[in-house]
Amino acid sequence: MNMNMVEIIDKKRMGKELTNDEILYFVENYTAGEIPDYQAAALLMAICINGMTEEEIFSLTMAMAGSGEKLDLRDIADNVVDKHSTGGVGDKVTLIISPILASLGVPIAKMSGRGLGITGGTVDKLQAIPAYRTDISVEEFKKNVKEIGISLISQTMDLAPADKKIYALRDSIAAVQSIPLIASSIMSKKIAGGSNCLVMDVTYGSGAFMKNKFQAKRLADTMKKIWRGENRKITCVISKMEQPLGYSVGNTLEVIEAVQALHGQMAEDLQEVVLTMCVQMLKLAGRTQTENELKNQIWGAIHSGRAFEKFAELARRQGADASYLYDLNKFEKAPMIVPLISEKNGYVQELNAEKVGKISIDLGAGRKKKEDEIDRRVGIILCKKIGDKVEEGETLGFIHANSSDKIEEHIEELKLAYKIVANPVQKESVVDEIL
Amino acid sequence: MNMNMVEIIDKKRMGKELTNDEILYFVENYTAGEIPDYQAAALLMAICINGMTEEEIFSLTMAMAGSGEKLDLRDIADNVVDKHSTGGVGDKVTLIISPILASLGVPIAKMSGRGLGITGGTVDKLQAIPAYRTDISVEEFKKNVKEIGISLISQTMDLAPADKKIYALRDSIAAVQSIPLIASSIMSKKIAGGSNCLVMDVTYGSGAFMKNKFQAKRLADTMKKIWRGENRKITCVISKMEQPLGYSVGNTLEVIEAVQALHGQMAEDLQEVVLTMCVQMLKLAGRTQTENELKNQIWGAIHSGRAFEKFAELARRQGADASYLYDLNKFEKAPMIVPLISEKNGYVQELNAEKVGKISIDLGAGRKKKEDEIDRRVGIILCKKIGDKVEEGETLGFIHANSSDKIEEHIEELKLAYKIVANPVQKESVVDEIL
Repeated sequence: MNMNMVEIIDKKRMGKELTNDEILYFVENYTAGEIPDYQAAALLMAICINGMTEEEIFSLTMAMAGSGEKLDLRDIADNVVDKHSTGGVGDKVTLIISPILASLGVPIAKMSGRGLGITGGTVDKLQAIPAYRTDISVEEFKKNVKEIGISLISQTMDLAPADKKIYALRDSIAAVQSIPLIASSIMSKKIAGGSNCLVMDVTYGSGAFMKNKFQAKRLADTMKKIWRGENRKITCVISKMEQPLGYSVGNTLEVIEAVQALHGQMAEDLQEVVLTMCVQMLKLAGRTQTENELKNQIWGAIHSGRAFEKFAELARRQGADASYLYDLNKFEKAPMIVPLISEKNGYVQELNAEKVGKISIDLGAGRKKKEDEIDRRVGIILCKKIGDKVEEGETLGFIHANSSDKIEEHIEELKLAYKIVANPVQKESVVDEIL
Repeated sequence: MNMNMVEIIDKKRMGKELTNDEILYFVENYTAGEIPDYQAAALLMAICINGMTEEEIFSLTMAMAGSGEKLDLRDIADNVVDKHSTGGVGDKVTLIISPILASLGVPIAKMSGRGLGITGGTVDKLQAIPAYRTDISVEEFKKNVKEIGISLISQTMDLAPADKKIYALRDSIAAVQSIPLIASSIMSKKIAGGSNCLVMDVTYGSGAFMKNKFQAKRLADTMKKIWRGENRKITCVISKMEQPLGYSVGNTLEVIEAVQALHGQMAEDLQEVVLTMCVQMLKLAGRTQTENELKNQIWGAIHSGRAFEKFAELARRQGADASYLYDLNKFEKAPMIVPLISEKNGYVQELNAEKVGKISIDLGAGRKKKEDEIDRRVGIILCKKIGDKVEEGETLGFIHANSSDKIEEHIEELKLAYKIVANPVQKESVVDEIL
């Protein structure tokens, strides 16, 4: 192919449709390091603003899925069920449902990403468990799934390397909120990842990439078309992400909350998402019981301790010091923990997830540039959520910071994330629709 | 300032207006190397697509002008007149008019840029004269103007370094065609360059950044607002660039054509632009004669040999081997020179400048990526221009290439740039309007 990257960028800048060959040229040569980051950044920004047709999205997905090895998981089970969330603030659902499902006999072979924008990434959270290895080989990954029924790792360089490179770049150039880029990123990983069933949590709201339900449904629709084009089964759960999910935001803090959840203690919104996702995944895995029967199985896995033990087994198997999971006080804490005290009586009407997510990045829990190191200790604990009653003098939340530098600023920002009103506020359910 | 580049990009991605502080933050930190190329590329692409308000353009211009030293030329003359072209294919006007004006006593202190997109850059052309130093110090530059009345150099890193960095990046990310970026780039250099009078050649057509007259007039208008906001004098010449200007495209080839022009041999379109620009510059420099009187002075400078001698003096002064200018055969030629032969009789109706410019880049006369080396020998000679009569078997033009690799492809592309029709075609004037 005799192509010129500048001409490809120029075409998309003008809002024209790229050919399959042009998209393949970009993906292959960017992955190979032949196209510099700045040209890729320009193209991605043009895609963000000018969009892509369905054909272009399909080409991009297939080019990324084909940029490395493709995994074949058919030797593990007939139906290997994967899950994915389009991201949210405080979304630790993968850490909770994976061991639950594995303990119920559903094989979990899951590759996850790093944090992107204001939403955290499962890999960053797993790495908060001391010595947990997210970078094991594909062989070890498959061996773990066969032997203990579960493995959670980072997306390896061998699988959709193009997506890994593009994903990291998007994060640092504000090219996150784009349906074509989100859909192709997720689907390329999932197609290369080899599972044939997928449950998607498509989030919308201030804390998600999709700001409204219309966008979320468009994204779900785009992903279903790609996935079905590949002849596989998919369910999309559309859920609201107006406030952070659960009580904690930040890597170590979310691992701690996940362990508590595996012991049965869950914030209402987190519980709703966990149960919904588990039920949908059990269904795609071929379980034919009623939803209530499935929910009983899930609670059984939790209350018997089997789900938590599976998580600890996973951690040990991947090299981690699982003693931390048995004694949560062992986790290193941030050096500064400062409370936000309510100055009035009332009810929480709003708890802006985007604002909380931004504080979390600024504290060092997420990345501003792709080279940035993150601090796994820092984050935010939310003591009050939407609908909760608050009294003057009560603690609304805590900032966990690694220095006192901007602590007052962060406390002020957290205060702005809360809106407290005089009249009672109805708690709303989080899950909106199942498509 | 506590700012986050990702948020700035995000704002512009959504089409919002950036504040003066945000623009200053970007310009200062990108120049200082604190912001990586890929973030700058994303922002520039978002500006390209979503545009900028007048306030934003003014902020960007002033931030770039203030990113380095500002030159003060008031000790040279009351009115130091600068010229600039928004670029075109085969535009060697600066090389011709600068020595003409200098020989008429108008001091020329001019800093130029490298080639950008399909249009060549004066600096690349000057460097085709063996040993010509475009990178002399500001002190030497001013000394040359005082002593011999002329100096042509590249934009130094001390003057508007932000523009130099942004300009090079834009070239490799298809962020060339943008009125805010073009206007701020030109005006920042000119403001920092210290001249108080400016004649702009604002080109439009297939070979220019502006594709139509409407865009060209908008650009002229934007630049006049910025320049007058600085209380200086400006004239904009709006000119068509449908076909390449003159007979040659490529660095060495254009230097040769410029020398021939200084001896009085000029293609009609080139002559029209040269005379118009010279007259407007003489006027801004304070000459009060009629246009005809001024034109006679210009022809006098050419036919007396004074203009050419001034060019040779300039070259010697800047370290070049001026013997090349006296014996044009000394210039190293491209190893492959292949003619395009007309297959029919008729008249040239079109000679697409954009197509010719792209061949020229592909031959190696321009850059695809900012790191690319250019080959000064290569280019295109056009023997026939719009309106010319052509007979079957006559040579339309020559490709000067450094290898035979793609020569047939390039000949084919040059053939496509020409449209030959049976009926006579009227030659049109190039200069459209003077604002």
